[in-house]
Amino acid sequence: MEKYDIVVIGAGPAGLTAALYALRAGYKVLTLEGKAVGGQIVNSTKIKNYPAVIEISGPDFAKNLRTQVENHGGIIKLEKAESVISNGEGWTVKTDMDEEYSAAAVILATGATPRALDLPNEERLVGRGVSYCATCDGNFYKDKIVAVNGGGNTALYDALYLADLAKKVYLIHRRDEFRGDKALVEQLSQKDNVEFVLSAQISKIVGDEHLEKIILDNGRELTVDGLFVAVGYKPQNEIFKEVVALDEDGYIKTEDGVHTSAKRIYVAGDARKKELKQLTTAVSDGAIAATTAIQEM
Amino acid sequence: MEKYDIVVIGAGPAGLTAALYALRAGYKVLTLEGKAVGGQIVNSTKIKNYPAVIEISGPDFAKNLRTQVENHGGIIKLEKAESVISNGEGWTVKTDMDEEYSAAAVILATGATPRALDLPNEERLVGRGVSYCATCDGNFYKDKIVAVNGGGNTALYDALYLADLAKKVYLIHRRDEFRGDKALVEQLSQKDNVEFVLSAQISKIVGDEHLEKIILDNGRELTVDGLFVAVGYKPQNEIFKEVVALDEDGYIKTEDGVHTSAKRIYVAGDARKKELKQLTTAVSDGAIAATTAIQEM
Repeated sequence: MEKYDIVVIGAGPAGLTAALYALRAGYKVLTLEGKAVGGQIVNSTKIKNYPAVIEISGPDFAKNLRTQVENHGGIIKLEKAESVISNGEGWTVKTDMDEEYSAAAVILATGATPRALDLPNEERLVGRGVSYCATCDGNFYKDKIVAVNGGGNTALYDALYLADLAKKVYLIHRRDEFRGDKALVEQLSQKDNVEFVLSAQISKIVGDEHLEKIILDNGRELTVDGLFVAVGYKPQNEIFKEVVALDEDGYIKTEDGVHTSAKRIYVAGDARKKELKQLTTAVSDGAIAATTAIQEM
Repeated sequence: MEKYDIVVIGAGPAGLTAALYALRAGYKVLTLEGKAVGGQIVNSTKIKNYPAVIEISGPDFAKNLRTQVENHGGIIKLEKAESVISNGEGWTVKTDMDEEYSAAAVILATGATPRALDLPNEERLVGRGVSYCATCDGNFYKDKIVAVNGGGNTALYDALYLADLAKKVYLIHRRDEFRGDKALVEQLSQKDNVEFVLSAQISKIVGDEHLEKIILDNGRELTVDGLFVAVGYKPQNEIFKEVVALDEDGYIKTEDGVHTSAKRIYVAGDARKKELKQLTTAVSDGAIAATTAIQEM
């Protein structure tokens, strides 16, 4: 069984940053990734809000960070972690390749995936009109027409954010009232360029090279340049539920954003509940998780 | 009087990131800086731990971030804020150039400066042997001989961090016992490559192109490749003390890392007390402060 000081589960920005910080501190680090190295950021075509990097694509961001980790001697394996179990001294991580790795400390950085509408064309038009992050992509829709889909606070905040940028914002929700805070709904109702579209669901996403329009289940057609889907996130922490406490939504419970309920298992990034899901906050989480793990070795 | 939505005080990584996020959300933003745009990072010659940027100099980091903010329409003025006072609707910021700017919200990002030993050669050898940040620069001293100067937890953590990397670590403290946690002292005393040098002060820093040795006030000479000064930080918040609550050390008080005691005045970065002072955490602070300010506009 290969032995490591730290095994990081998840090679998104949070996980790879944790690996980078632990490697620079002289530790032996393995990062495991079941899907794509880079995590969700590989779906971004254009990032302009990562400080000091004027513009970069998501795949390039991921490639650079991977290179940086490997330059520091980090090992990244494309294996999906399937369990973390105590081995007395520390932790054993088993993967879908039937491998076992031992670690003094484990950092969980499995992220959370935005829920999709699961409509035809949706995935194909990501970065070409369809987005799951208003803070990331809103600026690309200045003076354009956009729709937000959702009824919780995230959707309401997204609509407010976009109302300052876009010419027109449709806020579409399947129920007849929003689930989010009344104060936000009130703020939105005072914006001239926001139109509430209640008791409606999107049934078709139409576009060839770029999103062109959406069609609602009541037959109404909305010509839009952008669609921001804000119907929640799905964490991926089931395999950890035997070793760390999860909250009712499946996020890893943490008091301080770093420590889990298990000794020497830490969390970084969106696998715990957090407000602002950005590269900036992900890399901060990774740095703090690694530094904490090291200090407690 | 020029009117802005948000005035950011301090153009380090936290302040400029706050500006970038607010600008991308469509707000009019002014950033004021009394010293150098970029803040302390301009003193770093080589940064290798900023995720997805394999290597960059501090001045280049600052220049890129400045360009990025200006590309988004941000205004940066080299004026030192001298006061923030309520104007009924929002805040008026006065500067040392006798200018006044009004803002609906203010973000304080004045940072904290590491305390120096104030010895000859110290400043000249920064980045060439002298450092104020083990997490940033420790990796450059693999298998080398280093000294840490200080007696608090930061110095103890720095020594532990460096003990995993360097061949030898001298931990120099002017008193006969450390101020920091006993458990850390205990951990350090078990490291073969750590030597406590107590009741001693550095009286000379010697080096031409690079640090060569340090001389203590008891006459002992230590040949070292690196000197990590860890004698505390000094925030620069006196001018804000009439409007926001400061703690006993002069840091801005905050419950959640963002909100100050004054409505629509926020804090980002090292101006509040925080553990890990890194680019990663600074840019996260800036993004969160701006997003919070926007949501509360």
